[in-house]
Amino acid sequence: MPPLRLGIVGGGTVGGGVWELLHKNSQVKIEKIVVRTLRKRDYSAPESIFTTSIKEVVDSPDIDCVVEVMGGTGAAKDVVLDALKAGKSVVTANKALLAEHLSEIIAAQTKAQRPLMYEAAVCGGIPIINLLQTAYTGDTIQSVEGILNGTTNFMLDKMDREGADYGAVLKEAQDLGYAEADPTADVEGHDARAKIALLAKLSFGISLDVESIPCQGISQITAADFQFAKHMQGTIKLVGTAAQAGDNVSVYVAPVLLPLTHTLAGIGGPGNAVTVTSQNLGPCLYTGPGAGRYPTANSIVADILRVAAQPTAATYDVPAPFPKDSPAALQADYVASFYVRAAGNDLPTVSTLLGWAKEMGVPEPTVVEAAVTGAVAITTAACTRSQIDALVAKFPADCTVLAMPRV
Amino acid sequence: MPPLRLGIVGGGTVGGGVWELLHKNSQVKIEKIVVRTLRKRDYSAPESIFTTSIKEVVDSPDIDCVVEVMGGTGAAKDVVLDALKAGKSVVTANKALLAEHLSEIIAAQTKAQRPLMYEAAVCGGIPIINLLQTAYTGDTIQSVEGILNGTTNFMLDKMDREGADYGAVLKEAQDLGYAEADPTADVEGHDARAKIALLAKLSFGISLDVESIPCQGISQITAADFQFAKHMQGTIKLVGTAAQAGDNVSVYVAPVLLPLTHTLAGIGGPGNAVTVTSQNLGPCLYTGPGAGRYPTANSIVADILRVAAQPTAATYDVPAPFPKDSPAALQADYVASFYVRAAGNDLPTVSTLLGWAKEMGVPEPTVVEAAVTGAVAITTAACTRSQIDALVAKFPADCTVLAMPRV
Repeated sequence: MPPLRLGIVGGGTVGGGVWELLHKNSQVKIEKIVVRTLRKRDYSAPESIFTTSIKEVVDSPDIDCVVEVMGGTGAAKDVVLDALKAGKSVVTANKALLAEHLSEIIAAQTKAQRPLMYEAAVCGGIPIINLLQTAYTGDTIQSVEGILNGTTNFMLDKMDREGADYGAVLKEAQDLGYAEADPTADVEGHDARAKIALLAKLSFGISLDVESIPCQGISQITAADFQFAKHMQGTIKLVGTAAQAGDNVSVYVAPVLLPLTHTLAGIGGPGNAVTVTSQNLGPCLYTGPGAGRYPTANSIVADILRVAAQPTAATYDVPAPFPKDSPAALQADYVASFYVRAAGNDLPTVSTLLGWAKEMGVPEPTVVEAAVTGAVAITTAACTRSQIDALVAKFPADCTVLAMPRV
Repeated sequence: MPPLRLGIVGGGTVGGGVWELLHKNSQVKIEKIVVRTLRKRDYSAPESIFTTSIKEVVDSPDIDCVVEVMGGTGAAKDVVLDALKAGKSVVTANKALLAEHLSEIIAAQTKAQRPLMYEAAVCGGIPIINLLQTAYTGDTIQSVEGILNGTTNFMLDKMDREGADYGAVLKEAQDLGYAEADPTADVEGHDARAKIALLAKLSFGISLDVESIPCQGISQITAADFQFAKHMQGTIKLVGTAAQAGDNVSVYVAPVLLPLTHTLAGIGGPGNAVTVTSQNLGPCLYTGPGAGRYPTANSIVADILRVAAQPTAATYDVPAPFPKDSPAALQADYVASFYVRAAGNDLPTVSTLLGWAKEMGVPEPTVVEAAVTGAVAITTAACTRSQIDALVAKFPADCTVLAMPRV
């Protein structure tokens, strides 16, 4: 079999990793790497391989497979769609692109009948896409929940272990290169939201407008919240959830107060972890690194080598395993138990808090009896997010809400 | 695409599970189920589908894929080889068969150019075969270690939590149907050994005579060992390991004293878990149920549906990801830190123990200072198993050895 001829669009960290892992592999031949500017790189590719012209890859008859690692949802979208249209297979790591335009891209792929692979788009080092596409084909998935963002997990882990404040750990994450100068996509949960949208599509066949997914980040979490969590023998993780909810699917991203005995509670540092619960298997946990040059490149390379082994197959992108007769809808007002914390100079009294909760019909409000200076917290039994939001509207400005496993 | 026509050889627990998960699936058609005796089953298959003749499946031109779930290494071997020879694809859950005859079976598969799938053979509910075949193709695996046997994990977990004795938990495991009347294959580690042999083949390309793999079971472990383990903030798990050791591969099954912070320490009940450590990803943990009707059937069904989607492909059984120029050999004398415990009326004194250890050149022997009645234990720094066995030869009859993560 002749080698699969690759054109890599994007020559940065991940593109360079793909070069390093593949340039000696006889199953593929890297023909071109498209970069924004021609300059010296931190990997060994010869000068002749670089180009600044996307057309040289997408329009070339000498390229079989386009590897899109440029990022963004503008030019990258054209690269993916044009490559499919030109009869090339496509491997991409672009979660934002897929989450925003998955239906359009899958339609293009179905028309082109060429492989479209995107293992690296969700949890770089965990082959969760492949797992959902192949291990659950005879099963019914009940829920997928996971720590999908390494940056925020690194931050929350540090806050937990060191009692540090949000601002301090954010700065440290930025200094270490885990968080970007504008950390919004990570800390407000948008990155995790794009990933849970893809996982929901693969697990439940549901196509979601990412903006419609309820999403809360970690920027309101304080050291006091970790004090309360510790008192409750728990910790706080940013979790993306997609779960059956009757005929619909509940999908959301929220910081969650988990008991230390929960499987996701032990995932430290920038690690990722996903628990898939299904009818045949019950809960299965998959863990691995969430990002980084080699973990991400490794998933891209696994995709590429799968295409190289079966270049004519168009069926890797298995349809969602459970196409429903009537497609499920998003249940945006998710149900959980909740924790609500207030802080500040003008704290409501315990009886005021409980009175508000009773007034709003929030079930089983319970004050957390921990000695945390200048803050009070209550927990609730299972209710809807909108009930909690109505309650929180009565609270002082400095407060936060955490979801909890349902009681 | 016409449905894939299946012949299931074996109509018991797992075969029945496959029927239940697949009989309404339009991608396949179950034509025959071969059973030893025709009698009422606990699943809904019509009488006409059952036969006692293996030939009716293996020789039939109307069967595309043979599903071998009869077990054993005698008739089952003929079923698999004859089916491949007849141009059929084969799905099997038979770890004993594969571990003993993998080279011969893969040779037959290569000649036949038909898919051979065996996801259910190792850790029923964890898609570890698929993961090793697809997620690590551009990577270098450094080690695979796991809790591969649910029965012994159930027993060890109970001994840990309840302080129970080996004999009592074995009886309970038998009463619950986790352990068989003759529990040897589980408790002496033979089941885990067959599985680690397969994982070593897939991870390192090494073909092993299963009998040559060092293997220690759990039958010598007592409540005293768990008392010592607790004192050391640890627990005991039966672990199968395959790891790079220079140019060779160290493969063994042994009970291991793990610190509670170790990822495998938290795997409870009859669960299975595998940690794969690789150059690109570092350690990744995969957990799930190890056995049972639906977990095992689920893996078989995933294999079958993969064949149904690409019935002409012969490349699912990806060659070992890391074919070496010179094949690695088994390093049978494995290296670990160790724990050795003696008990009985005629206990050696601490200074005698330390004297023996010094005499045998065992590094850093350290007495475990726990108040355990009628027993003493020492730990060592890293040395070979043969060094420890030589030391243990001096011990009283009632003693046991546990491996420990290397110090």
